[in-house]
Amino acid sequence: MHQTNDMADSRGAAMPADNVDNGLYGQDILSVNQFDRKLLEYILDVGDEMRALVRRFGKANLLEGKILANLFYEPSTRTSSSFQAAMLRLGGRVIAINEVKYSSVTKGESLPDTIRTLESYCDVIVIRHPETGSAQTAGKAARIPVINAGDGAGEHPTQALLDLYTIADELKRLDGLKVAMVGDLKYGRTVHSLTRLLRNFEAEFAFVSPEQLRMPDYILDELKADNHTYAEYEDVHEVISDVDVLYVTRVQRERFPDPDDYERVKDFYVIDPELMAKAKQDMTVMHPLPRVYEIDTRVDDDPRAAYFRQMENGMYMRMALLAAVLGKA
Amino acid sequence: MHQTNDMADSRGAAMPADNVDNGLYGQDILSVNQFDRKLLEYILDVGDEMRALVRRFGKANLLEGKILANLFYEPSTRTSSSFQAAMLRLGGRVIAINEVKYSSVTKGESLPDTIRTLESYCDVIVIRHPETGSAQTAGKAARIPVINAGDGAGEHPTQALLDLYTIADELKRLDGLKVAMVGDLKYGRTVHSLTRLLRNFEAEFAFVSPEQLRMPDYILDELKADNHTYAEYEDVHEVISDVDVLYVTRVQRERFPDPDDYERVKDFYVIDPELMAKAKQDMTVMHPLPRVYEIDTRVDDDPRAAYFRQMENGMYMRMALLAAVLGKA
Amino acid sequence: MHQTNDMADSRGAAMPADNVDNGLYGQDILSVNQFDRKLLEYILDVGDEMRALVRRFGKANLLEGKILANLFYEPSTRTSSSFQAAMLRLGGRVIAINEVKYSSVTKGESLPDTIRTLESYCDVIVIRHPETGSAQTAGKAARIPVINAGDGAGEHPTQALLDLYTIADELKRLDGLKVAMVGDLKYGRTVHSLTRLLRNFEAEFAFVSPEQLRMPDYILDELKADNHTYAEYEDVHEVISDVDVLYVTRVQRERFPDPDDYERVKDFYVIDPELMAKAKQDMTVMHPLPRVYEIDTRVDDDPRAAYFRQMENGMYMRMALLAAVLGKA
Repeated sequence: MHQTNDMADSRGAAMPADNVDNGLYGQDILSVNQFDRKLLEYILDVGDEMRALVRRFGKANLLEGKILANLFYEPSTRTSSSFQAAMLRLGGRVIAINEVKYSSVTKGESLPDTIRTLESYCDVIVIRHPETGSAQTAGKAARIPVINAGDGAGEHPTQALLDLYTIADELKRLDGLKVAMVGDLKYGRTVHSLTRLLRNFEAEFAFVSPEQLRMPDYILDELKADNHTYAEYEDVHEVISDVDVLYVTRVQRERFPDPDDYERVKDFYVIDPELMAKAKQDMTVMHPLPRVYEIDTRVDDDPRAAYFRQMENGMYMRMALLAAVLGKA
Repeated sequence: MHQTNDMADSRGAAMPADNVDNGLYGQDILSVNQFDRKLLEYILDVGDEMRALVRRFGKANLLEGKILANLFYEPSTRTSSSFQAAMLRLGGRVIAINEVKYSSVTKGESLPDTIRTLESYCDVIVIRHPETGSAQTAGKAARIPVINAGDGAGEHPTQALLDLYTIADELKRLDGLKVAMVGDLKYGRTVHSLTRLLRNFEAEFAFVSPEQLRMPDYILDELKADNHTYAEYEDVHEVISDVDVLYVTRVQRERFPDPDDYERVKDFYVIDPELMAKAKQDMTVMHPLPRVYEIDTRVDDDPRAAYFRQMENGMYMRMALLAAVLGKA
Repeated sequence: MHQTNDMADSRGAAMPADNVDNGLYGQDILSVNQFDRKLLEYILDVGDEMRALVRRFGKANLLEGKILANLFYEPSTRTSSSFQAAMLRLGGRVIAINEVKYSSVTKGESLPDTIRTLESYCDVIVIRHPETGSAQTAGKAARIPVINAGDGAGEHPTQALLDLYTIADELKRLDGLKVAMVGDLKYGRTVHSLTRLLRNFEAEFAFVSPEQLRMPDYILDELKADNHTYAEYEDVHEVISDVDVLYVTRVQRERFPDPDDYERVKDFYVIDPELMAKAKQDMTVMHPLPRVYEIDTRVDDDPRAAYFRQMENGMYMRMALLAAVLGKA
């Protein structure tokens, strides 16, 4: 939406969106900073309704006749499929544009021109783009709602929303939780966004990472400003017995200039049945996926392993957001 | 349609299609030469109806249960998306085949075999292919309608039809217009096809291009044969104050063996607010897009800048054509 | 379906599936060995019904609200389009995932994780994958039905089923036929699978191939165990006058270390009008396509040339299978 270019900068402080009272109809979804507690509670409720509809009827034909342009400048099977399924289950239709890099873009067309063309054909645009800020650019160019499905090192707000939905669904509350985020906290877009969303609730944070991959100071500063408690750790074993949410991300070898450093710490961030034996019974293990070695597949059958349910929740949250911005939630 | 292989050669003179009285049901759309004035007026009217339906209801479920195979041998996000949206807004469904180059084609299959396979699955085929004449080949092989979405240096008839629709919509008439075509008139498939369509109306032409990129003689000869007036220019400033339609295309640096030649003329074909200040109030600026530098983005907000509306019209014209060949217009 | 991991090995003897009495509802389609005569007759009948519905109404809205994930790890326009058309004609919707190689797979995700993610979004998965056994792996990981659309040198059961359907439809019987398989019988996945399906009927086989590309012994051993008659030949001219089914595949030059060997035999496997003049009037010529030189295009208009009808039958059989596994056949 080009009317909404007063969006807070993604690095800025959380700003209550001025559309809270009116809901999300006609709005872009560009940043987690658009959401305050009231709006979060509303969209999680809509997600619950979507899940109930899908489980009962397989679908919810709220968006019959509407078209989504699913514009992916970089591949992401998971996110792309999730948005497509969300639109289809709502009775809408999808134009999937995956080959963008080979196409008009290579002829030098600007992103605003591409967006203005696409909005002639469809009712809502989902965009994934490798450049930070591109979703904002798209939102500014379009008169129809634009949903950010990841813009480089920027944001991926629908991931953070489905993460929050999963916490609420697994633990039946969002206040009073001890949340451990584990792994690469420096480059991990998902842990930054989820932390920001959780600032709207009473949460205590444990950040578990190698020294090289610590949570950035600007996130920590935001928590301090809010009087949220956090502590930093190097090894997940230090915190496992005490956490309600264990949010796992991968520590990549390539992040370490010295391979010895990697070898020393890599096992600190691996979740296996032995570690899980020390965890509480009513906690939840989450991961944005894809998962490689960082969660042992033997954990998959543990009832606390929520990561595949988390994927499914992605569809419900995206249904909720699509329905909301198109005025049907 | 293999019944219709009596199509005029794309370089031949305009030939009134023998299906004028019967409309387009069951026909291929391969060349602008299929269309005479009566058929053009008919299809523009259907386009108007489609636009009214989309604006009122968001859709027009005339093709419920029909399947379009959207067969793109070379990428074109814009044209592909436009055809997909057209089919979806008509209630039909789409099989998008974008990765053709990697597939059975590489196993050496002939185009007629590919077409005969696809027609087993669908009701209409849209084909874009880099080789001139390929759409004719496809049309001959298929028993179902085939629509040419661009065949190399050949034709792109639906682009010319949407251009004509846009002129009619912006200026509310098609006769008595002074039409300037600007830029690369030698290699520009769109300006050739639009010129041919405009021969069905009273039009006067101004062709504005570098010497190296003049309108080909065979197009000029066709105009002479019809007693249409035209003149050639090197600089758009010479004609701007007098034109009703300014149809802009890009002059590419690579077309000039000598870079100095390019530098000397390049600014002659750039549309900016200063140029627009000299133009009539009731004229229209069009461009097939993508646009790079040849239209200054400051022109975008000028009410005479029709190029984004032109894109939108593409969907309505393609809806009209799909409905017409499937007997639902 | 992870419940059905008691599937016979694709190289093992034919095993009557234990789901015969219950039909295919909720089952995977991974191997031709799942099908006995009773189940084959059932699914061919469903195919007939699908064809009748498509020919009368253009569609059969049995799967309204269902979503197919069409997961192609290697391109196959023909098979992919056929499954998509089948799902769309059943009123279902499709998420086409063609770019898998560029996506989460490259991030190192395991196939079971990909499948478990996708099954959150859809109701049935079709998978094509270059590695033998991958479809079994997918079937084991998924709680929803998985259909094998080709797993490397493994199986391609829906191709064999459409081949069988075509024989039944062209010749109006499946018993008492003399079936010649011609060309590359060593590497040809389709001829292996079709031979196995035909073991459920009274059939006599003629295997026509170069010495280097003979039918593998394990297939011949299966026929012996069943008391099926077969003979091997080097030249199709030896058998042409006597066969009811001529199933043609391509002999590729690259299979011959010595080019002279190829030159000596290549014409033995080419079907042209002269050869067809020697064939019976009530026989059928089939080919899995794509066809290059091995069937002369002059044969295409021969009423015995069934290969394009065979493609069309692919859609009906896939409609039958999709409807069956989703409980709507």
